[in-house]
Amino acid sequence: MPSGEDDLIARHFRPLATDPGALGLVDDAAILKARGEDIVVTTDAIVAGVHFLPDDPPDTVARKALRVNLSDLAAKGATPAGFVLTLALQRADESWLAAFARGLGEDAAHYGCPLLGGDTVSTPGPLMISITAFGRVPVGTMVRRDGARPGDWVMVTGTIGDATLGLDLLKGGAAAAALQHDVAAREVLIGRYRVPQPRNALAAALRAHASAAMDVSDGLAGDLAKLCAASGVSATIDLPRVPTSPVAAALLGRGVTGIEALVCGGDDYEVLCTVADANCECMADAARSAGVALTPIGRIMAEPGAPRFLDAQGRAIALSRLSYSHF
Amino acid sequence: MPSGEDDLIARHFRPLATDPGALGLVDDAAILKARGEDIVVTTDAIVAGVHFLPDDPPDTVARKALRVNLSDLAAKGATPAGFVLTLALQRADESWLAAFARGLGEDAAHYGCPLLGGDTVSTPGPLMISITAFGRVPVGTMVRRDGARPGDWVMVTGTIGDATLGLDLLKGGAAAAALQHDVAAREVLIGRYRVPQPRNALAAALRAHASAAMDVSDGLAGDLAKLCAASGVSATIDLPRVPTSPVAAALLGRGVTGIEALVCGGDDYEVLCTVADANCECMADAARSAGVALTPIGRIMAEPGAPRFLDAQGRAIALSRLSYSHF
Repeated sequence: MPSGEDDLIARHFRPLATDPGALGLVDDAAILKARGEDIVVTTDAIVAGVHFLPDDPPDTVARKALRVNLSDLAAKGATPAGFVLTLALQRADESWLAAFARGLGEDAAHYGCPLLGGDTVSTPGPLMISITAFGRVPVGTMVRRDGARPGDWVMVTGTIGDATLGLDLLKGGAAAAALQHDVAAREVLIGRYRVPQPRNALAAALRAHASAAMDVSDGLAGDLAKLCAASGVSATIDLPRVPTSPVAAALLGRGVTGIEALVCGGDDYEVLCTVADANCECMADAARSAGVALTPIGRIMAEPGAPRFLDAQGRAIALSRLSYSHF
Repeated sequence: MPSGEDDLIARHFRPLATDPGALGLVDDAAILKARGEDIVVTTDAIVAGVHFLPDDPPDTVARKALRVNLSDLAAKGATPAGFVLTLALQRADESWLAAFARGLGEDAAHYGCPLLGGDTVSTPGPLMISITAFGRVPVGTMVRRDGARPGDWVMVTGTIGDATLGLDLLKGGAAAAALQHDVAAREVLIGRYRVPQPRNALAAALRAHASAAMDVSDGLAGDLAKLCAASGVSATIDLPRVPTSPVAAALLGRGVTGIEALVCGGDDYEVLCTVADANCECMADAARSAGVALTPIGRIMAEPGAPRFLDAQGRAIALSRLSYSHF
């Protein structure tokens, strides 16, 4: 009786539907309990050949699809509540699906973000995964993009530029040649491209202390420009303060890449936030407690406009293309 | 400063983001206020060449993408609250996008279901639209699939089979030859394929009087089988009672199609529900008040199993393929 589609869902995805509101994935819809909080909704899709490489391992594809959404929830100060999944496949490849569902299930459990429902469709085109994720915040406390104020510190979590180097490496670019004998370094960068590290541990601290936040997905420079535009301010960033990993720093030192490429490259999935002077110490303490590296990289300036990026000599650097755009 | 993608969103989709929770589409996430109700979440995607034809008019593609989700909310007894949109495009075609956004905006306004957020990505593959829609129900009142009880009437809204005939027509099948001189009939059937008529007007009546409900998207026979399986019951359906439009009835009369094809064809987007004997009169009154045709087509039977479909002589008809499956 069950069709191939229902059977596929039952085998691979029902085990992930651990929330009672998912109704075991046998209904048309899921129930999301509100519990007196605001529901934060975010949606992000990834397409084979665009956001990930067609031969990326299926479990990392699943993790990336979920984590790019978890990263948005983190930046908004929201606690993950669940997600719905749309999977567009050319065909139902059992071993691919099993690995995909395993990676998805492990991340859903780890981040406390259960599968609530979804839709599986066939497509003659590339594999595409679209996820809509839900989070909870106390009423009125979602951290927005438009709250940055002059004098606020601009801060960023983790390190910037590793993922774009990882993609360059997978595509056989300059990083591939430079690291051809360094397996460990290659793995670090490729891992950062394939499997983002969303900063959900920082959510409560952002709600408590940040004036604005967003996740860095399309490049630090371009995303900061969006935050500034939404807040009606500008910013000045000290490029030497932008945190880089040891591998990225070594490539910068050897001239294999430039800081401009790193701050304009995509896929970081770090949190960019602004914090008033008075809250900086509390924010730093909270980040330490959460185990998330958080680095001040500049200040918010009053006059609206494009952010300025200063080099070690304090000279403004012109960035030709601030961030990734699909069109 | 704005990238092509941001510019596209601002031009075509920001006017649709009328809900304050959408934050003008300039944040990473939307805020869905809960207001002490349960949030009903449903997600359905449509792919060019699979769920609609590549040359379907862009405004009907938009309407179908939203309405297949509104249909799920209707069947669950939920009042629409908003939706998020993922649009995967090969390229940004301005006139196509303008027509698409116009159709989407008109439907969003008509059904009270504003755009809350979304993601626009490029794809080398076919156009795909994935929508996650939200509805509200008083806590604990979502109408589920698993509530059908022996003796309940099985009822269906509107008419069954028009959309599958419309698709057959667009593909040059038997209906195309039979109706080559009947423009009006062709338009009725094609319209039903391209633009579903979700039964949101019936939502409150379903909450009040139905024991179970789902929308009919993959074929009445197969969807009823799913409802029966979820409820642990079976059903007996009188095929002559299945409501058909005058155009479909004429094609049935001429032998151009058979009732089996109509009850197994997809894309009806009607509501299938079960109603206890005691509630039938109230349900009929409520449907009349809502202006939605609602027809009893059979009864729920106690022993679990596949539904039986009886012809005019009371003989069980074997249906070879109950419903559409992608895999």
